Amino acid sequence: MQKRSLLLMMAGVVAAGAAVAAEDELMSRAQALFKPIPEQPPEMEGNPSSPAKVELGKMLYFEPRLSKSHAISCNTCHLVGLGGTDMLETSIGHRWQLGGRNSPTVLNAVFNTAQFWDGRAKDLAEQAGGPLINPVEMATTHEHAVEMLEGIPGYQPVFEEAFPDAEDPINIDNVQDAIALFEATLITPNAPFDQYLKGDADALSDQQKTGLELFVDKGCAACHNGVNLGGNQYQPFGVVEQPGADFLPEEDKGRFEVTQTASDEYVFKVPSLRNIALTPPYFHSGKAWDLKQAVAVMGVAQLGAELNEEEVESITTFLHSLTGEQPRVEYPILPPSTADTPRPELGIDQ
Amino acid sequence: MQKRSLLLMMAGVVAAGAAVAAEDELMSRAQALFKPIPEQPPEMEGNPSSPAKVELGKMLYFEPRLSKSHAISCNTCHLVGLGGTDMLETSIGHRWQLGGRNSPTVLNAVFNTAQFWDGRAKDLAEQAGGPLINPVEMATTHEHAVEMLEGIPGYQPVFEEAFPDAEDPINIDNVQDAIALFEATLITPNAPFDQYLKGDADALSDQQKTGLELFVDKGCAACHNGVNLGGNQYQPFGVVEQPGADFLPEEDKGRFEVTQTASDEYVFKVPSLRNIALTPPYFHSGKAWDLKQAVAVMGVAQLGAELNEEEVESITTFLHSLTGEQPRVEYPILPPSTADTPRPELGIDQ
Repeated sequence: MQKRSLLLMMAGVVAAGAAVAAEDELMSRAQALFKPIPEQPPEMEGNPSSPAKVELGKMLYFEPRLSKSHAISCNTCHLVGLGGTDMLETSIGHRWQLGGRNSPTVLNAVFNTAQFWDGRAKDLAEQAGGPLINPVEMATTHEHAVEMLEGIPGYQPVFEEAFPDAEDPINIDNVQDAIALFEATLITPNAPFDQYLKGDADALSDQQKTGLELFVDKGCAACHNGVNLGGNQYQPFGVVEQPGADFLPEEDKGRFEVTQTASDEYVFKVPSLRNIALTPPYFHSGKAWDLKQAVAVMGVAQLGAELNEEEVESITTFLHSLTGEQPRVEYPILPPSTADTPRPELGIDQ
Repeated sequence: MQKRSLLLMMAGVVAAGAAVAAEDELMSRAQALFKPIPEQPPEMEGNPSSPAKVELGKMLYFEPRLSKSHAISCNTCHLVGLGGTDMLETSIGHRWQLGGRNSPTVLNAVFNTAQFWDGRAKDLAEQAGGPLINPVEMATTHEHAVEMLEGIPGYQPVFEEAFPDAEDPINIDNVQDAIALFEATLITPNAPFDQYLKGDADALSDQQKTGLELFVDKGCAACHNGVNLGGNQYQPFGVVEQPGADFLPEEDKGRFEVTQTASDEYVFKVPSLRNIALTPPYFHSGKAWDLKQAVAVMGVAQLGAELNEEEVESITTFLHSLTGEQPRVEYPILPPSTADTPRPELGIDQ
């Protein structure tokens, strides 16, 4: 009996040792594939930050008068309090027109290697100029946006403080640069997964670790990796098997529309999975409202893997560990219009 | 010569004394007619405040999923950073429909004796229920708004904390009470005029004092008085002379629609003039973009007085002294929708 007890105990120690080794190995594999969100916004090349620029950028981000109707701001479709999205399939824009694709989160977008679902903007500053002039979004022109800001006297000193060396600081480049610098502050550090990546093995539950292991082993991490678990490469929606038109509408050919290259048909920027539990609905089409369903669809479409219910559950539980500290943003006070400020154009008779 | 100097000096002293006396008298008259905005929100009868209730109210105020489309919140038309208004003639609501009247400011609205331009809601809590179910605003029903909140799991604990004694805290009354308590925090104390009312004679410029004197002497203060310089009585638009249809559209008969009393035709609640420089366009129709023009129109319509340019200028300059400290609001973090949360209904095919 004594001998048997000893053997059992030794086996237990070995098993525990193996478990610890497996745990260590999982963490090492994760650390090789992913990086934590930094605590501070990264620097932007050619666009040095300052508190005055960030404050101006915040004002512009919340400024509905940048739109033709004066009713739509960046925050209309990328709500800082709603995971940086609008939780709609596609956004509502000028004259209640629908956007073509699901509004991607602004949170941590600074870590993506390009912007928009098709990567057509190289960075946040370039991105910021897009919705302004999209006829189904803010529907203005860059010229008119600048005219608006020049027509609101309270903006002059704020631009001067943000761009002290500029002779005529109110221009579209400065608008876009300032918005980009504010957006770069919208990062969400210290998710449980970040704590795990920094060495705290207890930051994830056992089920989350199982999910992480599946996420890596099944191949999800081949595309969803790096600091944003995505946002750094292009892939076809349907690497293995194209999903049905319910998720992948035929008429939207993705990056093909940017490159006109046949191999880019139905190719999209791999979306970041950061804060994914906060940002339904999913996919560029916004057609999947259930994160578990999205995981299952991805398994079949991208990996050719029929994930079973338990696997889907574990991976989804792991994805919940990607929810970080949400940004604390004080609502900016915007300067008033005056008698000379250009008027809103609603596109309907009043 | 000595005698003459002495006489001149004495005359000067008397004149200065008279000026001081006139200044003192103006301040006394002002103190009798107006009251400063208090530093703290007032208590609401039957709706005791707490930090948890105010926080919940703030979340609901910024919650677009309370609308049928999930795209319109209280803050869509009453932007806390835009003088509590949307700076549109009338607001854009569900399916880009236009509201009937200019969106009144939420700032200091707690000090009005009733809400809406026609006073049809007795207080902020009652008001908060209105836009929710107005088909050209948020276009939902109270039942569906509650269903929505019940369908977002993250709201349950927040309601429980705000209403710890309620067995089933998510209901429309609690929604409206919480929103009202948040709105009651949106007050703007310490305007130059408040400092003047508290005894600081230097808080107003000479021109502003001239404007104040005109404001009282010409009769503006007969209606625009109290803490909000308005918001506490009903008056016809056109006490003396009805303005043209450009400012007073014929089809909107104001309070008549509430009371069905002939004498209430074209009667409206006298709007507050607090922060008026921040909230163009003016009048219930939102047709006057220039504050000076609004002052001149009021002179003719309400007082039968053709104010000259200098008088209009002085009164307008005085009105600028009513701009107080704007509210500092941290954008609330809203809980995510889930697979089971009711979906947005945009009113168009998707």
